[in-house]
Formats: sequence, C-alpha cells, structure tokens
Amino acid sequence: MRAVDIIQEKRDGRELSREEIAFFVEGYTRGTIPDYQASALAMAVFFRGMTAAETVALTESMMRTGEVLDLGDLPGPRVDKHSTGGVGDKTSLVLAPLAAACGVYVPMISGRGLGHTGGTLDKLESIAGFRVGLSLDEFRAALRATGMGLIGQTPEIAPADRKLYALRDVTGTVESRPLIAASIMSKKMAEGIEALVLDVKTGDGAFMVKEEDARALAGAMLAIGKGMGKKMVALITDMDQPLGRTVGNALEVVESIETLRGRGPADLEALSVELAAWMVSLAGTAPDLPAARVRVRQALGSGAGLRKLQEVIERQGGDPRVCDDPSRLPRAAETVELRAERGGRVTRIGCRAVGHAAMLLGAGRERVDSRIDAAVGLVVGKKVGDAVEAGEPMVTVHVNDRARLPEVLGVLRAAIDVGPEAVPTRPLIHDVLE
Amino acid sequence: MRAVDIIQEKRDGRELSREEIAFFVEGYTRGTIPDYQASALAMAVFFRGMTAAETVALTESMMRTGEVLDLGDLPGPRVDKHSTGGVGDKTSLVLAPLAAACGVYVPMISGRGLGHTGGTLDKLESIAGFRVGLSLDEFRAALRATGMGLIGQTPEIAPADRKLYALRDVTGTVESRPLIAASIMSKKMAEGIEALVLDVKTGDGAFMVKEEDARALAGAMLAIGKGMGKKMVALITDMDQPLGRTVGNALEVVESIETLRGRGPADLEALSVELAAWMVSLAGTAPDLPAARVRVRQALGSGAGLRKLQEVIERQGGDPRVCDDPSRLPRAAETVELRAERGGRVTRIGCRAVGHAAMLLGAGRERVDSRIDAAVGLVVGKKVGDAVEAGEPMVTVHVNDRARLPEVLGVLRAAIDVGPEAVPTRPLIHDVLE
Repeated sequence: MRAVDIIQEKRDGRELSREEIAFFVEGYTRGTIPDYQASALAMAVFFRGMTAAETVALTESMMRTGEVLDLGDLPGPRVDKHSTGGVGDKTSLVLAPLAAACGVYVPMISGRGLGHTGGTLDKLESIAGFRVGLSLDEFRAALRATGMGLIGQTPEIAPADRKLYALRDVTGTVESRPLIAASIMSKKMAEGIEALVLDVKTGDGAFMVKEEDARALAGAMLAIGKGMGKKMVALITDMDQPLGRTVGNALEVVESIETLRGRGPADLEALSVELAAWMVSLAGTAPDLPAARVRVRQALGSGAGLRKLQEVIERQGGDPRVCDDPSRLPRAAETVELRAERGGRVTRIGCRAVGHAAMLLGAGRERVDSRIDAAVGLVVGKKVGDAVEAGEPMVTVHVNDRARLPEVLGVLRAAIDVGPEAVPTRPLIHDVLE
Repeated sequence: MRAVDIIQEKRDGRELSREEIAFFVEGYTRGTIPDYQASALAMAVFFRGMTAAETVALTESMMRTGEVLDLGDLPGPRVDKHSTGGVGDKTSLVLAPLAAACGVYVPMISGRGLGHTGGTLDKLESIAGFRVGLSLDEFRAALRATGMGLIGQTPEIAPADRKLYALRDVTGTVESRPLIAASIMSKKMAEGIEALVLDVKTGDGAFMVKEEDARALAGAMLAIGKGMGKKMVALITDMDQPLGRTVGNALEVVESIETLRGRGPADLEALSVELAAWMVSLAGTAPDLPAARVRVRQALGSGAGLRKLQEVIERQGGDPRVCDDPSRLPRAAETVELRAERGGRVTRIGCRAVGHAAMLLGAGRERVDSRIDAAVGLVVGKKVGDAVEAGEPMVTVHVNDRARLPEVLGVLRAAIDVGPEAVPTRPLIHDVLE
C-alpha cells in the first residue's frame, strides 16, 4: 500500500477501504507518512467528502492510535455530552452533576476555549486548586468515587487527532465536515462510553452558523456513533445570543452554581435539564425521556446536583466552598455598565461579537498560547425580546485592564440592537435528531 | 500575508493575486513555507484550476526563483521547441540543427526519459564524450559559436519547479493542467528565447492520450507564453504509434543522422521539417511559413543540417565521426526478430507498450535512478497500414540481456494487431493552434 495511491483514489472520488484509512492514519501518527501527504489527502477529502463508512473507519483509526478507556468495571451506565461550543455555554457544569446525581457515570474529557468561544477546562480552572490534568488512573478513580470526572485531553487519547488537527489548522483543511466529525468523535469514543448526547449549536455565535450545516454535522456524528455501536441523540440548539447571562470563566461558574441552586436563568436551566434528561434516558436509568426529566428535576430541586458538583470539585483538588460561597471565586477589579442609548426592545445580541468582546477582556484566547484571566467577563442583563429604557444598563463589563475597555464597549455597542418592537424569538431547541 | 490564507482562498475558488502567488512560490523555494502547505495548495489547484492570469503569475514566479538567461547579445533570433514527449520522438536531434542552419539560435534545455518515454539527453549521451552538463557560460559560448546548444536542466534554472515537481509526484497532484503547463513553461521561459514551438502529442503513447486534453494543455501553455510576451505556436501531433522506426537511444541517433542525410522515415522527416519551419517562421528569418519550409528543406537537402549537428557534437565534446559513420555508436550484442503470426495489414501498434518494451530492454528508466543502456532498443519495421506476410519480421529487438527477451516479446506481441484490412490512418499533425 502506498500513501500516494490512497491520495489519488480519494482525489478521484473513489471510496477508501477501512484498511487504506487505517494504513494512512497509523502511518501518519508514527511518522512514516509525512505531513505533506496528509495535508494533500485532507484537501482531497475537503473537496470529495467521505462516505459514512469512510468516516466511521477514520474515527476508529484515529481513536485506536491512542488509549481507549475501558470503564466496564463501573457499576453503572457511562454517558457523556458533547457541545460544538458557543458563547456562555456552561451546560456541562450543570448537567454533568445532575446526570451523575441520577446514577449516570459521566467521564467528561473537555477542551479549552479559542477565539470567541469558551471552554469547560478554563471555567473549571477558575476554581482555586481544581486539577483538570488528572492521569487516566486518577480519572478512573474519581469516576468510581463520585460518578463523574472532568479532565482535559491527555496525550494518550487519539494522538492522531492532535497531530492531524494541528496540520489542518495551517493547511486550510479545517472546514471539512467528515474531518470535523471524525476529530470530535475519535476523542469522545475513546471515553469508554455507551451513549453520547450531542449539543450541536447553530446561530451567530456557533461554529455552524447555518442550521443546515449544524444538522449535517449532527448527522455525520450520529452516523459515526451509531456505526460504532453507541446510543446517540443530537439536539440542535440555539446560539444566536449567549446562553444564560454570563460570559467569562469565574462568572460562568457562579451562574452554574446558581442554576444548580434553582436560581439560574431560564434558558440555561431548561437546556441543561433537557440534555441531562437525554443522558439519563439513553443510560436507561429512567424508563423514558419524560421520566428522565422528572428525575433530573428532582436532582435539581433537592440540591443533589449541587452536592455532586461540590463532591467532584473536592475530589479534583478544588475549593469546594465556592458552591456555598461563590464570592470565593476570582472577581475583576471593577465593573462598568454598557447602557442603552434609547428605549425599546432588544432585537439582536450579536453572539459572536459578545464572545469576541469577552476574549478582548482576557476571558478567552486569541491564540492557543494566550493567557486567560479567570475573573473578567460580561453579564448580559438584557436578552433578545426584553424591554429596555434609555440609559438602563444592558451589559455589565467585569474588567481588570481598563485599557481594553474602549474597544470592548465599541464591540458590544455594535453588537446589540434595540428597536421599537419585539422580534420573534428563536426556540432554544431547534430540533432533536435521533 | 499568510500561506494558510492563500490556500483557503484557492480552496474557496477565488483568484489569487500575482503578489500572493509570488509570496507562496518564493517562500516555498526558500523553505519558509513548508511542504505540507505547498501540497495542500497544489491539491486545491487540482480541484479549482487556475485562471490564465494566475498561471502566468505562477510560471513567472517559478522562473524567477532561478537564473533567466539573457541571450540578447546573440546576433540573431532565439527560438526553441518543446515536446510533451513520446515514443521514438527524436525530432529535436533533427530540427534543432536544421533551424540553426537557417540562422535561428536554438538554446535547447532538455530532459531525460522516464517510464515509456525517451529523453533527448539520454539519446545525446549515446554519442561517446558528448557533454550535456555544460555550465551556463559554456552553453552561451556554444550557442554563439554553433547557433545551438543541447544541455540538461541545471540547478540554476527554476529551482522552484524542481522542488514542487518532486512534491507533486508523491502527493497525487501531478495531473493538474495549470501546474503541468507552468512547470514546463517556467523552464522554457528561462531559456531567454523570443519564440517557442510546442509539439503537444496525443494518442496512446502520449502524456495526453485524449486529443481534447492535449488541446487544453496546448492552450494553457500558449496563454502563458503569450502572456509573457513570446511568439508561440502549438502543433497537436500524433503519438498513437512510435515516431519513425527506432526506439532506443543510439538507434534513434542513427535514425536522426539518416534523416538529416535525407534517408529518414517519412513521418519523422515531415514532422521535423514542419516544426523547424515554424521555428524559422516565428524567428522572422523567413517571411512566412511556406518560405520557411523551403529554407528548411534546403538545409536538409544541402547537408547543412547534418554539418550543424556534427559541429555541435564536436563543440560539446562528442565524437563527430558518428555523423559520417553511425556504426561508431554503441550496438547491442544481438538482434531478435518479432515475426508476424499471420498476414494482413498492421491495424494497431500500441505505442505505450512499445515504449514500455524498450524500457524493459534497458533503453528507458523505470525509476528516476535506473541506469540506461544506450545500445538496446527496437526497430519497428512495419507501421500502421503496412502490409505484412505471415512469418515476416515486424520488430527487430536489439538486446544485450537475453533474460529480458521473453517479457519484451510478450509485451510487443500483445501491442501489435494485424487484421485483414487496412484501417483509416491518423494524420501526423492533428491541428495547429496559434
């Protein structure tokens, strides 16, 4: 088998065999197939796409270049959730404890934020002492003890994906649906889970702005998961305005705690409960989805979810007192209000721009090596459809470096429209694909 | 400017600017742009193509990474011919002396054979002592002294092309028309010529088997040359059976000498004269093409062409006596006849297979590092349309290593069809594109 023949086959639109894909992925990971052949193949895939069978084979090959967790010794079902990322999307911090409180084991391996989107790991690290870098053995032990674990990508998980992603990033081959789907799924399928709930976001702040693209990506990921024998569901959810009210790491942890106390914003609570209910339902811990919703709501109302979060924070070395006293989390030096220039109804909150503004404050990364400021961020006081009076605060900016304020306020002002009348609001959950 | 942005632009179907192309080509040649980005761009070009303006810019950028000969001090017009290559194609050895004898300076930088096609350099090197590796200064002096020079690609000429071609070869990006056209033209345009005659071959033994592909490639090369201010013409010529009767290096030199003596095969003489006449015509040395044909025929009939070949052989260190006594050229140990199994008319001579058979004998290269045997090769006694009797010789195999005979004879037997009736013959010159 020769790499150049495989490239030519794909280039000419023929379907690659499972063996050819495995040969290429393994050779590339070992270094016997060079970067320049991998980038040529990635570009050919960009143009020719991949069949469902090819995409499953690619995912499995990438997954098998690393460790695949065997969690079969846990005494309950293992289910995770994956979100394609957004602005203010902190559902993981809410739903993982809720699902764990309902008897689901949640082995969650998360990523960091980049550009206008945040990352679960960055949020967790705003809690003093929290270790996202557990070894896989420590992760296993945490799972067994608390029913959940929250860690970052380890070098043992799907090394092919890490190498290929870095290459795609500099060769114009990121935006390929099968490559995106295989990249995500190769890591998730290594978690040793039996089921996966996908939260595929669409709208201005999402990776897939257009709903048709979000649906297509969801379809590709569903096909991979099912092709690998997993129970799968995908929710297509709205990311046309930030989720909840906070954007920024410590601010989002506070909001997550408030939500687990039953005092969170309606959209964040509703989406977290729905995703957790799907996890419980796919796990078989409840007989059906309505029953799962009841169980999750009970875990929320009883405080069992909050206690689970506290447990996992303690287990992973963080300060568990933040759950009782969120003021222990980092706070910015000052807050500045962005006020409405005129009264009316909020008709648009540019979601990507809000994420960008938070990044400019230091809440996110402009580049992969940028440093994060856990304390800074935004609190969005008004959401689309809300009434606002002239001069009323719309966004509270939590800032440490005042030099960044003019640009941040400029971005935010351009991002928010106030009109005379309310516009139709988008549903929180656009669709459910099974 | 960033390489990844240029890749993405091309990927998304936008036209690259002259500056972007120059940035990429220069960066790649210097090594500041890595192979993996160049291969991704080449694959994007494979799918998206290039506009005429982009192809000219690419050619110029590649040409400018090396030396561009300035031959403006020569006291006459500089014109070259380029062939896309074929089997038994030795026109360069005939037409260059003819054109030089008519007052045209011919600075010919040629290549070596690979696979089923031969190369001018290999043919020249069958002449004892002939040096194809002149320095550019020696080349200039030879041109001034004799009106022609025959050398190989030097490291100073278009280094970008050498690097990019090696990369394309292993990344499935050879078969891209703009990349092929720019590769050829970047080297030819570095020759310091004012005009170029293209011999674009089509048929079973050609690089472009289908005539439509040959026409498209010719069109791309014409557009580049004209875009760079050169006088251009392209002849679409037949390569569905070997040109002339010989395939193999010394055998082809002998046939070229015979042709310059007026005793060559009709097809080789006709094509060589026509191509030389176009060179003379574009050079302006004759008032028009018919007058140029007359001048070239005179150079052939008077022996001036043969004397010019003798002159250049001597100038480049070769044994000039071969022109008077071709038996001084290397000869194979023995000859074996392939005989017709039945009588009739020759209806097909598989041209690629004949080239492959010659390669198997050692006349060509299976790989770029294969060694050539100058003496071996084939003499095709019968051409398409010729009558043949059962048992009559059709091909004479000149062989040094008898172990190769069974495979060679098998390939040749399968390549030649004899039928009861003559089939329509293809024209030697399919079309002329100006």
